[in-house]
Amino acid sequence: MTPPEPAGSADPAVLQSGGWFDWVIRVRYSETDAQRIVHHANYLVYMEEARTELVRALGVPYKEMEERGCSIVVAGAECSFRASAVFDDLIRVRTRVERVRSREVSFQFRLEDAQNGRLLAEGRTRHVFVDGSGKVITGPEWIVRGLQGDGRPRRFQHRESFASRDPVR
Amino acid sequence: MTPPEPAGSADPAVLQSGGWFDWVIRVRYSETDAQRIVHHANYLVYMEEARTELVRALGVPYKEMEERGCSIVVAGAECSFRASAVFDDLIRVRTRVERVRSREVSFQFRLEDAQNGRLLAEGRTRHVFVDGSGKVITGPEWIVRGLQGDGRPRRFQHRESFASRDPVR
Amino acid sequence: MTPPEPAGSADPAVLQSGGWFDWVIRVRYSETDAQRIVHHANYLVYMEEARTELVRALGVPYKEMEERGCSIVVAGAECSFRASAVFDDLIRVRTRVERVRSREVSFQFRLEDAQNGRLLAEGRTRHVFVDGSGKVITGPEWIVRGLQGDGRPRRFQHRESFASRDPVR
Amino acid sequence: MTPPEPAGSADPAVLQSGGWFDWVIRVRYSETDAQRIVHHANYLVYMEEARTELVRALGVPYKEMEERGCSIVVAGAECSFRASAVFDDLIRVRTRVERVRSREVSFQFRLEDAQNGRLLAEGRTRHVFVDGSGKVITGPEWIVRGLQGDGRPRRFQHRESFASRDPVR
Repeated sequence: MTPPEPAGSADPAVLQSGGWFDWVIRVRYSETDAQRIVHHANYLVYMEEARTELVRALGVPYKEMEERGCSIVVAGAECSFRASAVFDDLIRVRTRVERVRSREVSFQFRLEDAQNGRLLAEGRTRHVFVDGSGKVITGPEWIVRGLQGDGRPRRFQHRESFASRDPVR
Repeated sequence: MTPPEPAGSADPAVLQSGGWFDWVIRVRYSETDAQRIVHHANYLVYMEEARTELVRALGVPYKEMEERGCSIVVAGAECSFRASAVFDDLIRVRTRVERVRSREVSFQFRLEDAQNGRLLAEGRTRHVFVDGSGKVITGPEWIVRGLQGDGRPRRFQHRESFASRDPVR
Repeated sequence: MTPPEPAGSADPAVLQSGGWFDWVIRVRYSETDAQRIVHHANYLVYMEEARTELVRALGVPYKEMEERGCSIVVAGAECSFRASAVFDDLIRVRTRVERVRSREVSFQFRLEDAQNGRLLAEGRTRHVFVDGSGKVITGPEWIVRGLQGDGRPRRFQHRESFASRDPVR
Repeated sequence: MTPPEPAGSADPAVLQSGGWFDWVIRVRYSETDAQRIVHHANYLVYMEEARTELVRALGVPYKEMEERGCSIVVAGAECSFRASAVFDDLIRVRTRVERVRSREVSFQFRLEDAQNGRLLAEGRTRHVFVDGSGKVITGPEWIVRGLQGDGRPRRFQHRESFASRDPVR
């Protein structure tokens, strides 16, 4: 459970203890389905958005990885759905690097209702490093080191890594 | 309006008179929203699927266009929504080439409930030809001619052409 | 054109003169397509997110509308695509109420690259008021008045309104 | 591996031995991403489409379930991605009921390139039965029995269960 935030703190992206990185996403209408809840496939999209922001905070943004010739592609994903979210809900996606190895990296996720802390889903994604042609490669040192850190954002200056979507600011 | 189809006829792609090409799409759960109807942005996706099948039938498949260095990118889109569709509905997307010019092509769409013919939406998309780098170009002759035809699929024998199992279908 | 923001200012939602409401959205990987640009259907999704935030700022949040028995459904949409955006881009969606009448409301949109102000797309959506059963109705006065305002957010103190942690955020 | 189909047979939905149900889906442009491959979240959407068609073939269509007051909601999902698919590819989604119990059902999936049989992904989804209010319930007998069958479609008359999207016909 997330400890209560100090009143007035509204940073959507917050580093918590234990290497967890928090990112808040507001549910779009288009992400709901006829059961009036978030369609389950969108949890993978939320995890990807949070993962993108975590690696940005770790100093190894996706975009720079790609420009320097290395992408990380999803090799596996799993998710347990515990409770449902509806339109306009704020979802706190808590993310951390689970393990980095020479050729792969995995991330762990906890999605919570940002208002009351209720657990919505838990998940994990596994990725491999590939070069521009899609061939699996050993991850470049600058990326592996960035992801390792001590499991926590090396530098994390919220303004710089500016949270665009940022529904809560 | 589509004349009622003979019972038992279930061809998803049918050429109608007037150059209209019919393509039937079933609504996925993920395409609905909390109003229990198809989310409006998905109509653009349905139009794109139908357009893809029309140009395939016209002998100028998207994929071949791209492989030969010319894409058509969307420059404009409009849609009027007349009635809503729900999960599992069959939508008949009626498509035709509206106009082809040296640098652009536009398509017209009518989406109908495939079971009762009710009009769901009408739309139009406008596209420009671009080369591999994204620069607007004059459309290659083989594409322009294919799109012109007489506004109707040049060859359209979908049972047989499937049976031949050619690699791009 | 948006005047350059002072460095360090990172408010994603800003009221500009002329009733335009600004909302910044970062492009997700899942929103791009094989042309490496944002798939055009997602512009409707971006417009919807921005519209949702505008009506919230105007004091008539979607969710409250629905809870009080009135929704606004999309009756028409159009968009001209001027330039493309790629993964991780920040898009400033500028939105304003174009016209409110007893049974319908329309919105206008300008999407710009948030970094350099380049125009990406212009669009318009038209909506009708419906009751819980989907029947078109005259818009309730509290909604119509909220949308009219003078075309500009009645109250818009988003730092504070977040800090107050009111239930509709 | 799917045994070769008799020439001229173009049924997109085919029952194979072992209770596997085959459903072919063509990749839409909107489902690809900037890596030029199908975005991973769409595999959950493909699985859902195939699952929808399997339960229809088993005589327990989603829509009828919902109309009779019981839905199945996704409680868990996992997927391993083995190879990538690109725009216009035909993907054969092989689906079977893995296990039915009083309160839950799980499905297994194998996604293959429909042209060459290459394995693209393997997955599993787990679902619970819920009533109209979202409360977990014991699955109604008609649904449980339908899902059990002997693991294979009870009746499977392709024309009736008509394959709308049906890209290969």
